[in-house]
Amino acid sequence: MGGKRIVTAAVLIIGDEILSGRTKDQNSSVIAEHLTNIGIRLKEVRVVADDEAEICAAVNALKGRYDYLFTTGGIGPTHDDITADSIAKACGVPIDVDPRAEKLLAENYSRRGLALTPARLRMARIPAGASLIVNPLSGAPGFRIGNVIVMAGVPEIMRAMLEAVTPDLETGDKMLSVTIAVDRPESEIADIFSAHQQRYRDVAMGSYPRLRDGKPVADLVLRSADAVRLTEAATTLKTALGL
Amino acid sequence: MGGKRIVTAAVLIIGDEILSGRTKDQNSSVIAEHLTNIGIRLKEVRVVADDEAEICAAVNALKGRYDYLFTTGGIGPTHDDITADSIAKACGVPIDVDPRAEKLLAENYSRRGLALTPARLRMARIPAGASLIVNPLSGAPGFRIGNVIVMAGVPEIMRAMLEAVTPDLETGDKMLSVTIAVDRPESEIADIFSAHQQRYRDVAMGSYPRLRDGKPVADLVLRSADAVRLTEAATTLKTALGL
Repeated sequence: MGGKRIVTAAVLIIGDEILSGRTKDQNSSVIAEHLTNIGIRLKEVRVVADDEAEICAAVNALKGRYDYLFTTGGIGPTHDDITADSIAKACGVPIDVDPRAEKLLAENYSRRGLALTPARLRMARIPAGASLIVNPLSGAPGFRIGNVIVMAGVPEIMRAMLEAVTPDLETGDKMLSVTIAVDRPESEIADIFSAHQQRYRDVAMGSYPRLRDGKPVADLVLRSADAVRLTEAATTLKTALGL
Repeated sequence: MGGKRIVTAAVLIIGDEILSGRTKDQNSSVIAEHLTNIGIRLKEVRVVADDEAEICAAVNALKGRYDYLFTTGGIGPTHDDITADSIAKACGVPIDVDPRAEKLLAENYSRRGLALTPARLRMARIPAGASLIVNPLSGAPGFRIGNVIVMAGVPEIMRAMLEAVTPDLETGDKMLSVTIAVDRPESEIADIFSAHQQRYRDVAMGSYPRLRDGKPVADLVLRSADAVRLTEAATTLKTALGL
């Protein structure tokens, strides 16, 4: 135990295309894994439509409740990209073309021999007081305002922005985990597992069933920030299960 | 336009394993696609931890707001499966072993030559007043209480339950969509696209950028319940884009 504090986060995925089932969200699981690895606990994910009222309500609910809120989607050049404006509204700050963002875009388009059209300039609209998150792939930046981190929806660009913002994040005790694969239905090990949870109340234990060749098996996952306790709980559970 | 009403839904994914990034949620996109196909509009998805207070809060927020709430996960036999109890609490009804569910489980285990142990009987705990959703794969049923539909987390079982519950769902106007793949960055078509949205205000238009071989391209998606208007908007947009 480092004795560090617990740092929490939520993810907000913005986009009609996810809700229609047309596009599969790849970003939330990438962010989830990344946050676990760096010592931030993801507590909630929401997916909402490209709708200002919905985005504002979710941003307000989540940014107050967790240490960080990561959003993806809706910061492109088309009329349905309303994330930046919605977040400015939720945070109660004005929004306009940001000179720093305009410079990044101008440089990027100039390098590619393209003009900075009004549509492209739309991607330089950044809420007042935000810091920029660089986008090495297409120039158009994400931004961070307070504890809200606003990233692109395109998975490759989102990942680059997530990496770019990571050094500035406060992190806490890292949640460690051990997985014990069990070759039996979870109903057969439920009693032993439950008794073990009672014995190690400080180690979170979850059973995740799945079908393997049509037969029910389970992964037992033990989680704790304390490596010594975790190893002890896992070792004694294996013994209790005869593994 | 059928003139039918719009039927809405939310999805609640329950499970620490999704939030830790260990397991990728496959269920929400399957439910999203299914609901779109049968004429129910998915408006929101949430993922919360295996935590009674979190589950109750999300259930209460979502079941009042949408016509249906579909949940997945947390209805197995282990101590961390607390969905049924949490939903009973959220709905303000008692929960106990349900004789109908017990019968289904007893039959299933008897067929497999297994005993109905106390751990397995835990899967027969159903909130008072709920109807059961059959599970042809492993016997343990899901349930529906009011507008809340509670399904397993194992994807194969979830799909079977979703099929089983579908005939009893009220459906509305089906949202139709047309996708126009554009071989250019969305910033190049943003002006035409925005003008087209202004012209067809009753057709929802979204642009979904992605990288193809590292180059930005976009899918333009038009959505409407009115097939005639949708076709007209798509045809004229293609013309406007020179496609």
